[in-house]
Formats: sequence, C-alpha cells, structure tokens
Amino acid sequence: MKCTNQINLRNIDESFINIDPIQVGGRLTADAMKAIISYGDGYSVCDQCRKPFRLDYIKEPPIADFHHDLAEFVNMDIARVVPGARRGFQAVTDTYVAQGDPVLITALSHYTEVLAIEGRGGVIREIPKSDGDIITPDATGEKIEAVIREFGRPPVLLFLDHFDYQYGNCHPVKEISRVARQYDIPVLYNGAYTIGIMPVDGKELGADFVVGSGHKSMAAPAPSGVLATSSERAGEVFRTTTTRTDVMGRTFGIKEIGLMGCTLMGVTLMGMMASFPHVQERVGRWDQELANGNLVVDALRSIEGTIIRSEYPRKHTLTRVDTSSSFDKVAMTHKKRGYFFSGALKERGVAGIIPGATKVWKFNTYGMTSSQAAYLASCFTEIAEKNGLAVHR
Amino acid sequence: MKCTNQINLRNIDESFINIDPIQVGGRLTADAMKAIISYGDGYSVCDQCRKPFRLDYIKEPPIADFHHDLAEFVNMDIARVVPGARRGFQAVTDTYVAQGDPVLITALSHYTEVLAIEGRGGVIREIPKSDGDIITPDATGEKIEAVIREFGRPPVLLFLDHFDYQYGNCHPVKEISRVARQYDIPVLYNGAYTIGIMPVDGKELGADFVVGSGHKSMAAPAPSGVLATSSERAGEVFRTTTTRTDVMGRTFGIKEIGLMGCTLMGVTLMGMMASFPHVQERVGRWDQELANGNLVVDALRSIEGTIIRSEYPRKHTLTRVDTSSSFDKVAMTHKKRGYFFSGALKERGVAGIIPGATKVWKFNTYGMTSSQAAYLASCFTEIAEKNGLAVHR
Repeated sequence: MKCTNQINLRNIDESFINIDPIQVGGRLTADAMKAIISYGDGYSVCDQCRKPFRLDYIKEPPIADFHHDLAEFVNMDIARVVPGARRGFQAVTDTYVAQGDPVLITALSHYTEVLAIEGRGGVIREIPKSDGDIITPDATGEKIEAVIREFGRPPVLLFLDHFDYQYGNCHPVKEISRVARQYDIPVLYNGAYTIGIMPVDGKELGADFVVGSGHKSMAAPAPSGVLATSSERAGEVFRTTTTRTDVMGRTFGIKEIGLMGCTLMGVTLMGMMASFPHVQERVGRWDQELANGNLVVDALRSIEGTIIRSEYPRKHTLTRVDTSSSFDKVAMTHKKRGYFFSGALKERGVAGIIPGATKVWKFNTYGMTSSQAAYLASCFTEIAEKNGLAVHR
Repeated sequence: MKCTNQINLRNIDESFINIDPIQVGGRLTADAMKAIISYGDGYSVCDQCRKPFRLDYIKEPPIADFHHDLAEFVNMDIARVVPGARRGFQAVTDTYVAQGDPVLITALSHYTEVLAIEGRGGVIREIPKSDGDIITPDATGEKIEAVIREFGRPPVLLFLDHFDYQYGNCHPVKEISRVARQYDIPVLYNGAYTIGIMPVDGKELGADFVVGSGHKSMAAPAPSGVLATSSERAGEVFRTTTTRTDVMGRTFGIKEIGLMGCTLMGVTLMGMMASFPHVQERVGRWDQELANGNLVVDALRSIEGTIIRSEYPRKHTLTRVDTSSSFDKVAMTHKKRGYFFSGALKERGVAGIIPGATKVWKFNTYGMTSSQAAYLASCFTEIAEKNGLAVHR
C-alpha cells in the first residue's frame, strides 16, 4: 500500500505491537497528529512572529509559555527547543570545549556525545563501568583524578546518561554529579531515555545542563528535543550574537549563537507542544510501565538459556537480552535460520526486532497496555516452547 | 477554532492568499501532507535501518535514492539532508573556519551565516553592495584584496546568497565565484531562496558547497534542508568519526561529525521526499512565477508615491516595496492608523503582511495562480484608490 507514488504507507504502530528500542517513546499522541496536520507547512509557527523575532518569544501559538513549562518540567531555569538531543550536546560543547580539552563521558555514553566532543577537538576520556554495567561515583572520582594527572587539570565537562542506550541501566546521577561538583566540573544530564517518560528533576540530580529528545521520549516528530540549563549557565550556553558587520554596521538582535537562531519553526515544535500535556501526565505512570516491562522480562528469563544482560529487576522499559543459548541455538538448525524468531514474532503481531537477530538484542515495552505486555510475554514463551526450549514457570 | 485543547487551528493558507515573504515556498504539497501523516511518529524512518546504521543508507523508505537525486538536482556530487540551511552553514564553518580566520559574507547575507561564523570565532568581513543593492565581482575582488592586506591572507570561505533575503535581488554568483577561485577561496552557495523554486546548477555556478532550505523553498516541514558538495570537498565536510575511546576501545562506524550523525529521522525528511517530485517539476515553471510577481509589482508601481526597492523588473517573487509616500501617508490620518492597510488586505482575503506595516515591507507571490496574482494586484490598487491615492494605469 502506498502513501504517495514513491513512498510506502507506514503502519508499524497501527498494525503491530512495536517493541523497537528507540521508537516507542516518540510515537505521536492523537493531539500531536492533529497539530502536525494543522502546522505541517514549513515556517508554520511564524505567522505571528514579532520583535524581537525569536522563536521562544512567539505568543501565538503559545510557544513562549511552552518554553517556560518545559524548564519547569525538568526543574531547570531556562529551556530551549533543539533539533534533537544531539544538537543540545553540540550547543554545550561549543560553549565549553576547546581543542585539546579533556571531556569525560562514560563507558556507556551515546555516540552523539562523542561526535559533539570530537567536533570541538576535545579529548574524550571514559569512566569505566562496574561489573554490573553501572557507572559509579567511585569510578568517576578515580577517572577525574586520572585526567588531572594526565592533563594537569580536570575535565571541562562531564556527560552523564541517566539510563544508557545499551542496557537501559540506571546510573546514580545525583551521586556522580556530587563528585564532579567537588572539582567544579559542569554536568550535562542526558535524558534522552528519561525526559518525557519518567519524572526528571534536573536540580535535584545536580545537573548544569539537561538535554532531552522529543522524538525519542516526548511523543514528538523528529528532529526535536530540549536543552535546559541553570540560570548560572544560561548566559553562556544561550549567549547572543555580538557581531557588528564592518561595512554595513549590521547587528543581529538577540539571536543565540549556540542554537543558530531559531530552531524548530514548524511541525516538530507543534507536535512536541501538542503532546506535552499528555507527556506531563504520563511520566506519573512510570511504575505501571515498569511493571509491564518486568512482566515481559520475567517471561524471557523463564526460557532456558536466556540471560537478561540489563540490571534486574528492571528500572527501565528498555532491556538488553542475550538469547545466544536459547533462540540462537534454535536458529542453528531452523530452516529459516535466525529469521525464524523475528518471523514468529511478526506472525503474532509483534514488530521492532531486527530481522535475523537471535543473539543479543534490545527491546522496549514502553507505552503498551498491561494486556499487551501479558500477550507479548506469552509470545516469547510460546515461540520458545514451540521450538523445543524449556520454559520454567 | 481549536486544533487541540491549547492550540488554535492554523488555516492561513486554506483561507487566505498568503504573501508572507518566508512562508510561501515551504507550504506542503498534498503528497507531503500524506507522508507526514503516515510518518509522523518520532523515529519513523528507522524501521529498516541496518548496517552501517546511517540515515543516507536506508533503502526503505527510499532515503538512499533520495540523497542521490538531491545531489543531481543541484548538480553537485554528494548531498546530505540537514535540519535547516543554517545547519548546513554550521557544518561547513565547523570544517573550514578557526578562531581569527577571516570569512567573507556580503552586505546582504542572512543572519544565520553570521551566527555560523561567529560560533567558530571567525572574523566576518562584508563585501559592499552597489547602489542598486547588487553584489558585484569587482567589489568581491576589492574586498578580498582588502582582507589580504588586513590579515596577510585571503578569507578561508565565501558565503554567497544567490538571491538575498532583503531585496530578493539576483547576484552574479558565477562571476563572483570565478573571482574567489583565483584566490582558492571555497564558495558556499546559499540557495535558501532558489533551491526548490527555480533551477540551480551548483557546478555551473562555481560552488564548492550548495545549501538549500526545505521549509523555505522545498515544500517541506521545518527544520529541513540540504547540504551538497563537490566530491573534492565531501571528504572534508562529511568526515567521519575517528574516535577510539580510551577504556572500552569503542569506535563509532561511519557517523559524520559535522552532521552529528543522523539528521532528519522522521516527518521532516519524509515531507521533503514526498514533495520532491513536485519540486523537481515546479522549478521548470519559474518564468510563470516571475510573470505573476511582476504583475503584482507593476500594480504597486502604478500607485503614486510607491517605490519598488528591489531591482526591477523582478527576477524573484520576493520583493521589497516602500510605501512611505503612499500607504503610510494614508496611515497618518486614518482612524485605524497603519492597521488600515493589513486590515484592508485581510478583508480581501490576503494575509502575510505584518499588521501595521505601511513603510517598507516585503511580500512573496510564489505559488499563486495567475488569476490570484491579478486579484492581488487589483487589491493593492483598489485599496489605494479607496484611500485617495492616485493610480496611474
């Protein structure tokens, strides 16, 4: 079925239970669908842009209010929307990282943090993870000391992913930030997997900068996201242009250099705004989401040879599972090889696993109902039993 | 009328003839509307993202093909999509501009070019404009020489807006590029007001980098755009990460630093792609667009005291007009003051002029039918006559 002459209709989330690790938090709400239809056109939010001609000052649609609400939502002082969390990272590294500066990430940091630092010529140092794939305050302190020995000064910035993209494990941001603060290292909190799906309090966590992703966790179209800062840091990250051109003497008002002026002038922002009331409400249901996730995880654990590589019990709906000694064993002799597994899931109306993957893979149960979670759990055990794997109930 | 509980329905382009200077080229096509409905969800284009896990390699939807088509469309070698033209400028300045480097813009350059350069600590120098508000090859040569005298070396980069945002005037890019080439200065062609509405041949114009805006001129949602380069420059602007982390030894494949990895993972790209066949076709109708624009411009010129500040006859549908001695004179004694003019236009079904503006203002006739253009022309003369201004037909 075609959406246009050259583009197929996309119906993954209409026709399947989608457990794709990165997609589930970014599915639009019904209100966001309405908003993107109404505001689809290019510069659709600029109808009533007046002096000082900046996105976050627009009152109709209520973009200015949304910016205040966003800052409050993550308990920071100032917020801006950005074209994806990565552009938030970039704005912060542009401000604080110069060629040769040491910057701390973790052994589980997302690649976009690496690109932001590499783009500024920063030297990346990783905080090792513990055996349980957790970043600890002790490891942080040791790594800071190691950096000081190596560079003669502490790192200029620390990136912390509250829940990492590899395991969905919870890292003790507050305790790690406290260590960083002892060395006056500013902390960037990466909330790509938290902001919009669970409550986040940036100040309580000790963050100087809070970054979230609209398309990953705020039920918004891509690319969208949020960068929020403390009032102390806002003047640095959101510094405005000071250029006066040599011939014409032109100046450029209060455009912010790190954001390249306005950021999301249409459908992306409006989708984010329309979903926001629902997002504010849904973060309060995180416990139920975790219950659904753990139900599925327990079903997987009951299959002989299956190992949950993420911490257990789960504190996030994103989970890494190792089925090398269960479904992958089946794949070795199955006529469809590894494709038997994704195929069996698809037959049962489940999508979002890379076809052919039977060794180590990730899934995310976010946003499903408890009956869908129970159904998904039964799919896994049923596929296991049908293929001769023992299930220990 | 509400679109959601907190957001008003937007119906400017459904209910009015919109002559907003920046909006008209970014209105979605019907196919783009269909695509954004189908692909509204966050990471909607990632369903079939496989190794090497990069946006421009995705085959379904046909994103890889689209990238090839885009490069061909502007006659360059390699193209990438970016979250707005400004992010294309940023990727190029990140590559070529270091602290203290002189960078050339023009007296009519867009502010986002300034921000991109200022963000890298470049020193901006402007090529003056001629009396007719045109950038000339001679002025370019003189300014390059002046920069060499001042800095002891030529500028590291030249930004050229083919048609500028202030007047919509046509600047001789090809001839200016030829001058820059004599000094080995790479040329960034800013096609925000050309790519997607008129034919553009990057190589013929002598560009090293071609940047276009999806939401300004390619009937696409915001933020979107294109950055295309010659094959010689592609390896520099689209350089991939070389980081290997110190603890885990992690590497990050072929992610491109200047683009921060993937750029438009959903609705923005799909809108751009769905509109693309129509955009390819519509650039062939530029002459008709100019005829419509000139019809309106001639009507304005017929109103006593009205001056077209843009070059005449018009080579673009974006025009700057000075009505200080016509409509603004009326405003001085009108009970609605300056609002009489936008009000009279609104009564006639015309939107897109800043309410209250009667001195110097801009409008854009792009995308209207010839009968709409004739109607718009008659609106201007009718409003003039009704308010006691002579019209010389």
